Amino acid sequence: MDIKYPNGKKFERKELPKQAPVNKPKIETYGNRGMTLEEYLNDTNQFYRERKIAVIHKKPTPVQIVQVDYPKRSAAVIKEAYFKLASTTDYNGVYNGKYIDFEAKETKSPTSFPLKNFHQHQISHMKEVMAQGGICFVILMFTKYDEVFFLEAKHLLAFWERMMNGGRKSITKQEIEQNGHLISLGFQPRIDYIKILDALNLC
Amino acid sequence: MDIKYPNGKKFERKELPKQAPVNKPKIETYGNRGMTLEEYLNDTNQFYRERKIAVIHKKPTPVQIVQVDYPKRSAAVIKEAYFKLASTTDYNGVYNGKYIDFEAKETKSPTSFPLKNFHQHQISHMKEVMAQGGICFVILMFTKYDEVFFLEAKHLLAFWERMMNGGRKSITKQEIEQNGHLISLGFQPRIDYIKILDALNLC
Repeated sequence: MDIKYPNGKKFERKELPKQAPVNKPKIETYGNRGMTLEEYLNDTNQFYRERKIAVIHKKPTPVQIVQVDYPKRSAAVIKEAYFKLASTTDYNGVYNGKYIDFEAKETKSPTSFPLKNFHQHQISHMKEVMAQGGICFVILMFTKYDEVFFLEAKHLLAFWERMMNGGRKSITKQEIEQNGHLISLGFQPRIDYIKILDALNLC
Repeated sequence: MDIKYPNGKKFERKELPKQAPVNKPKIETYGNRGMTLEEYLNDTNQFYRERKIAVIHKKPTPVQIVQVDYPKRSAAVIKEAYFKLASTTDYNGVYNGKYIDFEAKETKSPTSFPLKNFHQHQISHMKEVMAQGGICFVILMFTKYDEVFFLEAKHLLAFWERMMNGGRKSITKQEIEQNGHLISLGFQPRIDYIKILDALNLC
């Protein structure tokens, strides 16, 4: 059957010119404007610092610098450097005099959190911090659902141990829901992890 | 007068070929094998960690990465990057559950410590840490004498204020001796700043 416009003109299906696929703009939802977990946390930490709630910073990315040029009358330029594996977690600082230490990771997996997101150095560091009486945890984000969980390091270490003893190489989402705490995404602050520390009486 | 060798041959002063000046090897003394303050402190912190006394790390040098190459089958190479001004102090960590935060600087000056070794961001950071109940101090080394001092941040801030109000741009050595604490250089650990924290009952 021919399809006709109201004016009687015949409709002809035209081939659209070929072009590179264009990503659909992400729909902006409250608390998520396409930000990465790192950006959320930088925002959060800035909010905490400005309100004098806590002083937490992300550590710089560790790099091994091999070659530096010193051009006359301008800044030194690093011409060769390599990314190094971090020997600690990425975030630390102070809240109420107490030492706070955490790592933040995201996964695209909908069902579990792969433990390969962490490495042995970081796990050892977490143990050392706990032994010293510091507050240690991880912030885990399931990007598929925009869900962020707070999980105390003691639980992460237990799942890590299970893997080292031949068990599964990830934590199921259900296990995270049972042992961790959902942090609802907000605007100010974005990811209010201090609220969880307060609720758990950790500080 | 001519100088002659025992074999009677006449000595002739020869011009040595010109070459770049060679630094004399430093004489090794106990506790100082030409190490920098940073190396001393890395050694010290490693000692503290191994003995489970404290967990303190130096933060990585902050760099602004501009260009990275990803060669096939080998590690990513940073081809262009710049040194950034640190927004915090260099060292932090945990001792007895308390947050520890410090900056370490050395001077060649024999009589005073120039305040230009610090910058406004670091001073602001120290204030924030103190307001949050963290333990904050500086470790100052006079390289001419191999003397290392522990100075609580509150004193540094007072000298900084003096400068901001038009006063001198340095702290005299005498002022550091009066307000700070000499840390004698040791072998294990090299610079036992935790001992000072204990003596001052800061933790």
